[in-house]
Amino acid sequence: MEEREISRAVVERLPVYYRYLRDLIDEGVERISSQELSRIMHVTASQIRQDFNHFGGFGQQGYGYNTQYLYDEIGKILGLDEEHTMVLVGVGNLGSALVGYMNYRKRGFIFKAAFDIDPELIGQELSGIRIHPVSELKEYLMKNPVDIVVIAIPKQHAVRVAEEISSCPIKAVWNFAHTDLPMPEQIQVENVHLSDSLMKLSYSIRRNETRK
Amino acid sequence: MEEREISRAVVERLPVYYRYLRDLIDEGVERISSQELSRIMHVTASQIRQDFNHFGGFGQQGYGYNTQYLYDEIGKILGLDEEHTMVLVGVGNLGSALVGYMNYRKRGFIFKAAFDIDPELIGQELSGIRIHPVSELKEYLMKNPVDIVVIAIPKQHAVRVAEEISSCPIKAVWNFAHTDLPMPEQIQVENVHLSDSLMKLSYSIRRNETRK
Repeated sequence: MEEREISRAVVERLPVYYRYLRDLIDEGVERISSQELSRIMHVTASQIRQDFNHFGGFGQQGYGYNTQYLYDEIGKILGLDEEHTMVLVGVGNLGSALVGYMNYRKRGFIFKAAFDIDPELIGQELSGIRIHPVSELKEYLMKNPVDIVVIAIPKQHAVRVAEEISSCPIKAVWNFAHTDLPMPEQIQVENVHLSDSLMKLSYSIRRNETRK
Repeated sequence: MEEREISRAVVERLPVYYRYLRDLIDEGVERISSQELSRIMHVTASQIRQDFNHFGGFGQQGYGYNTQYLYDEIGKILGLDEEHTMVLVGVGNLGSALVGYMNYRKRGFIFKAAFDIDPELIGQELSGIRIHPVSELKEYLMKNPVDIVVIAIPKQHAVRVAEEISSCPIKAVWNFAHTDLPMPEQIQVENVHLSDSLMKLSYSIRRNETRK
């Protein structure tokens, strides 16, 4: 597989293909042509074929794609054939939503522990995982290598936590704090900046009104 | 202002500029050059100048940008000089996190009401807003024009709600359901697909390990 030159735009579309394929499989669809996939996903058929060619094409075009095979292959490219262990930092509403979202577990994302600063939460459980004091986060990660640290705390605390864990044997940070975190190159970071998303929506509203 | 040809990539960066400028202003920085901004944001200075040129340039380059002026101007482009009214559909952990996030209110995003299917929640309040039965959503929106409907419910319900509100006088949908919603063209949609984000992170981990 030639994964070297995969652009960000293609990578952005992989989870979307994966999502639509899951729905098709659940509906009992076994084969689908790039034309049909194109119609459902509002992406051109040539875009789809081009995207799939990055990964070897996934089978005969004329005959259509086998949905289960395509789903599994895209899953492998996305690394979903392996389990990922996670810890949550910040047991607020957002963090609780993330842990409670059981879909993640089905896909092999397993929360091992949660951390918070609030003494009342320490020792309690959240969907079956134990809440530890955030002061023990670094020590925990040093003893228990974990793949992904989920940061769901305010930005003023997030930067300090990021610095603390930057020397720990973790692979990635899923960051919900409203700031970009300074992490070493070997630690992958994926940001979910909810305010940025809301501002883009506000921009679309303004632009749509200016057009009228 | 020539807003017509602004690419998605530039629009994606506007909230990021806005966020960094807010931090700079809070730190007391009154002027900044594109070089300094470049260093902080890890974007090239020429990219920054190019982005700003889409909107008229925002002032003298040699002398640097006035941070407050730049912040205000980008805020206007993003439509943040106007208030936006919102309703929440789905009072789970995620929805509660969104309503509780008071930053939104500071920027003029005001929740007016919440809706849920759970009879135990109906009539209660969430951060000062009243929770109504979701069966009254359409009627509410017909009587009370609202700018943004926030959808934070499972995908099987989200599609039905989307169909119901598609004829209501709303401007936009901020969608957290794990599916793409079929909305008419005049209603703007911004998706936050958390699973997609987590899969991208998983992809980065896999890719980083393959490289080693």
